[in-house]
Amino acid sequence: MAYQKLTPRSENYSQWYNELVVKADLAEQSAVRGCMVIKPYGYAIWERIQQSLDSRFKEQGVQNAYFPLLIPKSFLSREAEHVEGFAKECAVVTHHRLMNDPNGKGVVVDPNARLEEELIIRPTSETIIWSTYKNWISSYRDLPILCNQWCNVMRWEMRTRLFLRTAEFLWQEGHTAHATQEEAEDYARKMLDVYADFAESVMAIPVLKGVKSPNERFAGALNTYCIEAMMQDGKALQAGTSHFLGQNFAKSFDVTFLNKENKQEYVWATSWGVSTRLMGALIMTHSDDNGLVLPPHLAPIQVAIVPIFKKADQLDAILEKINPIADQLKQLGIRVKIDTADNMTPGYKFAEYELRGVPVRLAIGARDLENGTIEIARRDTLTKETRAIDGIVEHIAELLEVIQNNIYQKALQFRLEHTRKCDSWEEFKEEIQKGGFLECHWDGTAETEERIKEETKATIRCIPLDAPEEEGKCIYSGKPSHRRVIFAMAY
Amino acid sequence: MAYQKLTPRSENYSQWYNELVVKADLAEQSAVRGCMVIKPYGYAIWERIQQSLDSRFKEQGVQNAYFPLLIPKSFLSREAEHVEGFAKECAVVTHHRLMNDPNGKGVVVDPNARLEEELIIRPTSETIIWSTYKNWISSYRDLPILCNQWCNVMRWEMRTRLFLRTAEFLWQEGHTAHATQEEAEDYARKMLDVYADFAESVMAIPVLKGVKSPNERFAGALNTYCIEAMMQDGKALQAGTSHFLGQNFAKSFDVTFLNKENKQEYVWATSWGVSTRLMGALIMTHSDDNGLVLPPHLAPIQVAIVPIFKKADQLDAILEKINPIADQLKQLGIRVKIDTADNMTPGYKFAEYELRGVPVRLAIGARDLENGTIEIARRDTLTKETRAIDGIVEHIAELLEVIQNNIYQKALQFRLEHTRKCDSWEEFKEEIQKGGFLECHWDGTAETEERIKEETKATIRCIPLDAPEEEGKCIYSGKPSHRRVIFAMAY
Repeated sequence: MAYQKLTPRSENYSQWYNELVVKADLAEQSAVRGCMVIKPYGYAIWERIQQSLDSRFKEQGVQNAYFPLLIPKSFLSREAEHVEGFAKECAVVTHHRLMNDPNGKGVVVDPNARLEEELIIRPTSETIIWSTYKNWISSYRDLPILCNQWCNVMRWEMRTRLFLRTAEFLWQEGHTAHATQEEAEDYARKMLDVYADFAESVMAIPVLKGVKSPNERFAGALNTYCIEAMMQDGKALQAGTSHFLGQNFAKSFDVTFLNKENKQEYVWATSWGVSTRLMGALIMTHSDDNGLVLPPHLAPIQVAIVPIFKKADQLDAILEKINPIADQLKQLGIRVKIDTADNMTPGYKFAEYELRGVPVRLAIGARDLENGTIEIARRDTLTKETRAIDGIVEHIAELLEVIQNNIYQKALQFRLEHTRKCDSWEEFKEEIQKGGFLECHWDGTAETEERIKEETKATIRCIPLDAPEEEGKCIYSGKPSHRRVIFAMAY
Repeated sequence: MAYQKLTPRSENYSQWYNELVVKADLAEQSAVRGCMVIKPYGYAIWERIQQSLDSRFKEQGVQNAYFPLLIPKSFLSREAEHVEGFAKECAVVTHHRLMNDPNGKGVVVDPNARLEEELIIRPTSETIIWSTYKNWISSYRDLPILCNQWCNVMRWEMRTRLFLRTAEFLWQEGHTAHATQEEAEDYARKMLDVYADFAESVMAIPVLKGVKSPNERFAGALNTYCIEAMMQDGKALQAGTSHFLGQNFAKSFDVTFLNKENKQEYVWATSWGVSTRLMGALIMTHSDDNGLVLPPHLAPIQVAIVPIFKKADQLDAILEKINPIADQLKQLGIRVKIDTADNMTPGYKFAEYELRGVPVRLAIGARDLENGTIEIARRDTLTKETRAIDGIVEHIAELLEVIQNNIYQKALQFRLEHTRKCDSWEEFKEEIQKGGFLECHWDGTAETEERIKEETKATIRCIPLDAPEEEGKCIYSGKPSHRRVIFAMAY
């Protein structure tokens, strides 16, 4: 139970992250290669993310539904680009039965139970969903369809990291069907706004809204919108995407409708998703060398109260004082834990709550009782003060909002400080190694983008939606460019 | 859009069910054999079931977590009985890559991407979870662990029916670890009580709480508790199970802890689950030949308001009157929909809301406006009355509770009327064909149970927990018996 310090970020950022995820009890590797176990504390954060997003989706008219886990292999081939993007590294179900091993112990695959057509565990569900929508849509009156599902998906990743890249992950995928191109494009943009607002106001993660370059588009999309966040090592992390799919999937699955002019037309589509990857973004945006720093809006425990006592009657006296405070906090909807465990020292508890990112910690002992005071510690600033117990409830309610805002501002400040313009190739090659976002002119070609990636590993994270028009020359080719795009190293 | 009547229950109960599930927009077959699509209206009901159960679990100290979808084949063999029960009909992942077909179009399985060990899509998660718990438990201080997960599972069923038996289904599975046998047994019983209370007070489904005979136990359990409901065709449906697993899985996965006496001991376990099968129970308990009948506590729409109008200005006048009523209902937490669509007749709308089981329907036209009245229709009794608009909000709030209680009482009455004692084998063979529950003496042997099943297809649904002691003779063998058990045909 001895408290072990994390590797500092400055020493090894990647190791700091890996240790933090495990030590803060968020997730761990499972017995199945590349698949993680999300532990109760990590899952409690994910549940808050889900609830908050889900109610935002429902405000946009979205309804939840559920589509099959398994996709017939042939479905993946229907959309030409989609198959290139998703049909390669995936889990393939070939048989539907095991049998006792005739040569010994255990069970083996029954060779007689081979499926006629192999089934793929969904890497994403456009194909199965559009094969379903075909039966739901015949007239413009059936549109729009605005469905979402919360589910698990699999992509057979070779190099995995907890939350950031796992073979199985949890996500939501929205799939909408529209009567017009304009409505579909607007909807894809609207969901991007939902994601951005959620990331900033709930997760306290500042994000850039932008559009992907053709190279970085979702396989099968005409346009991919994204939100991009900057991690503390200066790398970019794509935190959510919203795709305008045009009529590609409608054509592949022959989904047409009778429009108002009484003509058959292919349906217009969007899809959009965020995943447990957001947990990785959350951790890497705010946390420090002492552990997790959670935004109050997502913290499973917002206030931890640690009574400092030696004997049971001391604890009783303290509880008499703090139980009413805890009750008042709970009535305000604040999530409180009073930690009365007698097998850990207060110091150990403090370190644990620090590690787990609890935003506010209260400590109260015999002297505080005499003085009518309480010690209050902020996780975000690591500061402590002793305050009068009178008025503590209102103070804490305000403080949680202050903390929520502070960690957002801190992350925003960090991003601003690590974002700069860059106008020459020599400078680019040097600057990109330092991390952060580089605002550069680019000639708009896939070739240039690929060469830059080959030479530096940097990619275009997005063309910001609010990028002003500005004439310039591509940092790589020198050809003319009309606005700057964001280059960075990325997760 | 023409409204088609359902096949009446009396004509073909099974067909009535199948039609109802599809016509009420709850679910449909997918392109993948045995796997269903849960449509938005069906999923909205499932979400209410989830939310209600989830908060009940959390009141019992349960935390949600997430464990991998895929289970190494060898894990299934570790627990001898478990492998017999679950390792047979399951989806087997053998490869992790597809490639372009060298002989033509489409994609084929890459023979070089064969997994070293096959992976099974979880049919239930005891094995992967206990392999994980091994790392979480070392001392009695780590216990109890009370985890639950909401997820999808697969069992390769040959004959499937929407909600009742599908290859993939959604469920929750709770898995707890305890320091003592007594605590584990108590917990398994406590969760049975949670299920029973939920079924009765939220789903309005009366259930018998009981324990399964050894033949019907979960594979690997020492004791399986269950709740059994009676459907309108007199068949039993197992609506939830809670298992006392003893130390079986702890032994299979070598999970020990240092107890308070400083000795190593195997951990005691429970598991418990309910699934989307509950949707089948819900439909078959309450619905009628006009469609679904939903308990108000689960209905996505509790009150549908249908304005009856010909011109737009008539609609405006009606809306002016009913918008404030709808707002007041919403403030009470009541889910209301005002249906202003002008492309369907009121009669069509009435039939639709009846089909979808909306508990209360209001209709209001020009004459009602003049008279200050509104028509109110109850889905459960199919009765209508015209009432003064004054006081309608309070009336509806009360009425929803009246309906909730009424459909429960109706289902309870049905079960009581179709439950009877039976004391001879000749009588049993005749009576069991009529449906319902038969309370019979049984000699307690697996042989007798199996013979009765072979000869009549009836099974022991449960030994009710409240069955009084009563001396008698087994209906089949004539051997002595000390209490009656419940026999029935079952889903």
